[in-house]
Amino acid sequence: MQGLMQDWPLLVHTVLDHASKWHGDREIVSRRVEGDISRTTYRELDHRARALASAAQGRLGLKLGDVVCTMSWNGYRHVETWYGLMGLGCVVHTLNPRLFADQLAYVINHGEGKWIFIDLSFVPILEGVQDRLSNVKGFVVMTDGANMPESTALKNAICYEELIGEGDRAMAWPSFDENTACGMCYTSGTTGNPKGVMYSHRSNVLHAMVSGGGDALCMASKDVWMPVVPMFHANAWSLAFSVPMAGAKMVMPGPRMDGEAIYELLDTEAVTATAAVPTVWLMLLQYLEQNPHLKLPHLQRVVIGGAACPESMMKAFEDKYDTQVIHAWGMTEMSPLGSLGTRKAGMEHLSDDEWWQIKLKQGRPAYSIEMKITDDEGKELPHDGTTFGRLKVRGPCIAKSYAKGDGAEVFDDDGWFDTGDVSTLDEYGYMQITDRSKDVIKSGGEWISSIDLENAAVGCPGVAEAAAIGMPHPKWDERPILVIVKKDDADVTREQVLDYMKDKTAKWSLPDDVIFVAEIPHTATGKISKLTLREQLKDYVLPTA
Amino acid sequence: MQGLMQDWPLLVHTVLDHASKWHGDREIVSRRVEGDISRTTYRELDHRARALASAAQGRLGLKLGDVVCTMSWNGYRHVETWYGLMGLGCVVHTLNPRLFADQLAYVINHGEGKWIFIDLSFVPILEGVQDRLSNVKGFVVMTDGANMPESTALKNAICYEELIGEGDRAMAWPSFDENTACGMCYTSGTTGNPKGVMYSHRSNVLHAMVSGGGDALCMASKDVWMPVVPMFHANAWSLAFSVPMAGAKMVMPGPRMDGEAIYELLDTEAVTATAAVPTVWLMLLQYLEQNPHLKLPHLQRVVIGGAACPESMMKAFEDKYDTQVIHAWGMTEMSPLGSLGTRKAGMEHLSDDEWWQIKLKQGRPAYSIEMKITDDEGKELPHDGTTFGRLKVRGPCIAKSYAKGDGAEVFDDDGWFDTGDVSTLDEYGYMQITDRSKDVIKSGGEWISSIDLENAAVGCPGVAEAAAIGMPHPKWDERPILVIVKKDDADVTREQVLDYMKDKTAKWSLPDDVIFVAEIPHTATGKISKLTLREQLKDYVLPTA
Repeated sequence: MQGLMQDWPLLVHTVLDHASKWHGDREIVSRRVEGDISRTTYRELDHRARALASAAQGRLGLKLGDVVCTMSWNGYRHVETWYGLMGLGCVVHTLNPRLFADQLAYVINHGEGKWIFIDLSFVPILEGVQDRLSNVKGFVVMTDGANMPESTALKNAICYEELIGEGDRAMAWPSFDENTACGMCYTSGTTGNPKGVMYSHRSNVLHAMVSGGGDALCMASKDVWMPVVPMFHANAWSLAFSVPMAGAKMVMPGPRMDGEAIYELLDTEAVTATAAVPTVWLMLLQYLEQNPHLKLPHLQRVVIGGAACPESMMKAFEDKYDTQVIHAWGMTEMSPLGSLGTRKAGMEHLSDDEWWQIKLKQGRPAYSIEMKITDDEGKELPHDGTTFGRLKVRGPCIAKSYAKGDGAEVFDDDGWFDTGDVSTLDEYGYMQITDRSKDVIKSGGEWISSIDLENAAVGCPGVAEAAAIGMPHPKWDERPILVIVKKDDADVTREQVLDYMKDKTAKWSLPDDVIFVAEIPHTATGKISKLTLREQLKDYVLPTA
Repeated sequence: MQGLMQDWPLLVHTVLDHASKWHGDREIVSRRVEGDISRTTYRELDHRARALASAAQGRLGLKLGDVVCTMSWNGYRHVETWYGLMGLGCVVHTLNPRLFADQLAYVINHGEGKWIFIDLSFVPILEGVQDRLSNVKGFVVMTDGANMPESTALKNAICYEELIGEGDRAMAWPSFDENTACGMCYTSGTTGNPKGVMYSHRSNVLHAMVSGGGDALCMASKDVWMPVVPMFHANAWSLAFSVPMAGAKMVMPGPRMDGEAIYELLDTEAVTATAAVPTVWLMLLQYLEQNPHLKLPHLQRVVIGGAACPESMMKAFEDKYDTQVIHAWGMTEMSPLGSLGTRKAGMEHLSDDEWWQIKLKQGRPAYSIEMKITDDEGKELPHDGTTFGRLKVRGPCIAKSYAKGDGAEVFDDDGWFDTGDVSTLDEYGYMQITDRSKDVIKSGGEWISSIDLENAAVGCPGVAEAAAIGMPHPKWDERPILVIVKKDDADVTREQVLDYMKDKTAKWSLPDDVIFVAEIPHTATGKISKLTLREQLKDYVLPTA
């Protein structure tokens, strides 16, 4: 017997409908690639998204199920493009501009993108790869007539503002099944080809509801959110949906994510909450250190994810700037938020130090995210804070497969997705990533977490960034070494680093060596690329070997 | 093209799964009909719900789609019954014990209930109606062996704790479509027969997500929620789902909703948030007035709905007890929350007085609740705070029909449900109920809101409760009168009331008369029964007529 409740599919356009009708005057402030700051509202954005959809249907011939790529910074035009095209039933495939040309051509072709919407910044990139694209009919350059490039090698380049000008600002959204695809994002696999995650309208709406919940990111109309995490990175952590859903003001940093630019928007727009990877916050904190008279009086919460947040960074925000850090963990395959480090009940008896140790973990899952750790045979392991195992997740906003059946080995028959992470779960339910299963350093039968070593090392004065990897050892199989980038003016030595780490890790897991480099290689999403690092160090021999 | 996200139906058992796994030690504290206070946890409740489901399947023969009635106060056994039976795929039909025998027999038969789970308090009621029930096979008395009645006229009465004792505490939940019916609640129509609203698993889960959101009831694990609103009243405002979803502690008042009993639980259990109709809060505030040394140090928020909250009540909570009032509006047909009076952005410029005027309204809708006011022809009316029209709503947690097609005239072709309320919407999006369309007093072509008159009257010293109704008038068609219940020791007069109201309402809408009565009749859900009042006053003649 069915319930007698309305058939109201969870389509993403309903989020903008709500923002426009009930929070119509709330602002979206964007730093544009053209260099200026633009201000618009949810009401105007709704009209423009409809106009874009109407013109995309008419002039570009786009229809339900067509894949359209975007290569764009965070800004109102990118948000319009998402809502306009998704509202039409198209699938928006966000391209990471940091991908290498080979990968870029691969994901565009694999995803079968028909049109590409690009910011001015990315015209040269697309000019370079366009001849290798199989399905692409043309490009929409996300600017106005005055700023269109005078000449471009792009074939069939259309001006975004001209396109929008042709559309019907009151176009009615079509309705369709909520399981219809609406977004696509490729994971930047460190091995093999990137794999495509395909979000549905349902998963995006549910994920926005979950992440804005009172015990999650607790989003309210009064908030001013700045999503620094790019819309091409893991579904922008859902912020392009969850922020309008709450009717909060949205501040978009565009192409500039340096400390000065981020600080400027935090200050002038009175941002109360923001989210990005540690690298961005490192730049902000360094800028603030260089300008000690600057404070963050408006900022209440900063969400840090994408990589583990070092203790020093968390302490800097909380102690020096009175800003709460919410440590987050997730994956592209999870829409992406999986856990958040907000404090729960039943921990009132913990000392500040004990709570700090838990804050450094990756947090706990909200409703709708099932989570467990298992051994290699799939047996569930206890929540004791020390036993670690493969981290597996399940839920309505988690991928059940990759595009075209790639990588099927990570999905099991009961619907669990193996995250590739190794983690613990403690008695309070807080999860801690011990390592990626492929980065764990295996020394004499024991597992050493490369992440633990990195977190300990970055606390050492003079260290800007650290990477730990396992190096072949004749006796112990592998032994850890540290690869370190010094702070600009620092003069730290191998001995100082090892001495600093002595009481922060077990003796047997202390690195056998420290190497100083000018730069540590990163993946397109800003994570340390250990694959590249190992490649760069292939001729390295351990002093202890 | 479909997205590639997991098929994870929104079934209500997943809420308890989450509470049990991640907030397993969090307490449910209940005042039992047996008289004592019971303490259990989400982990234990989960086991018992499974055991109940297992035994209900085995011994009672219940299966997917069967309707089971409950007549029970708020307590852990009632919550277990919901989760156990809904988890099995049964439809739980909550019976309001305040229904008259005729109505009770009608709704049980109309809903086709197969078994009835009842608290000890209600054995006499069911003994009285059992011979008129067509489908009921037996009764489960929600107590243990020691407290079972020594003799009862109930045919086939089973002891709840014995039943649970027979079940499998680890029973696995079956899976089924999320649109499957899981709850049933009849609206206490003031005209005609009650009509059955049928919730689905999907609507209950979505509604819990919406109502716990950061800009709605903002539910967090750290909260201690006391749902005073009964589980048999409008789906308990979703609290039996939203509170465990957040992992908050739950305090259940059982049969005692008098001021002393409510105060005791608020105090001893350190309740931080609670919800009920104004009548309950009237009793609490009177108790506190009689005991001026008592305070409410833990209570942060009180949700008031089911009837308009008088200004005097809101001021008492906010000014005397430093407790935030969240004015809520909803309907059984809406799962039930429709709007909440939390403050949004863009109102910073308002004075305290201006904000107070808006607080007294019924609030604004959260995402997923579409709302509009229209004229009689269905044309949408402006959000100007003065134009009023028929209030219509649409969304995934709103009924599309009543059981067996009753009352189809309130659902239109575009899926809008006509609430039967007349309201305004202001420029900020706050809705104010002007009246029920059938209670509006029509005087000389103008509409007078009976609710406005009542709210003004209850502010008058000495007035405990007030009802305004229209009385036939030869010239003006109708003129308003006030029916008033005095406070216990008060000595207020007709003239004092009218004098007090003089500057609180337009001159032409001042009541023509004031009548003092010992009691005002209420419907089964605690609302003023104007139908009964008009019946009682059928021989009354206006002094002005």
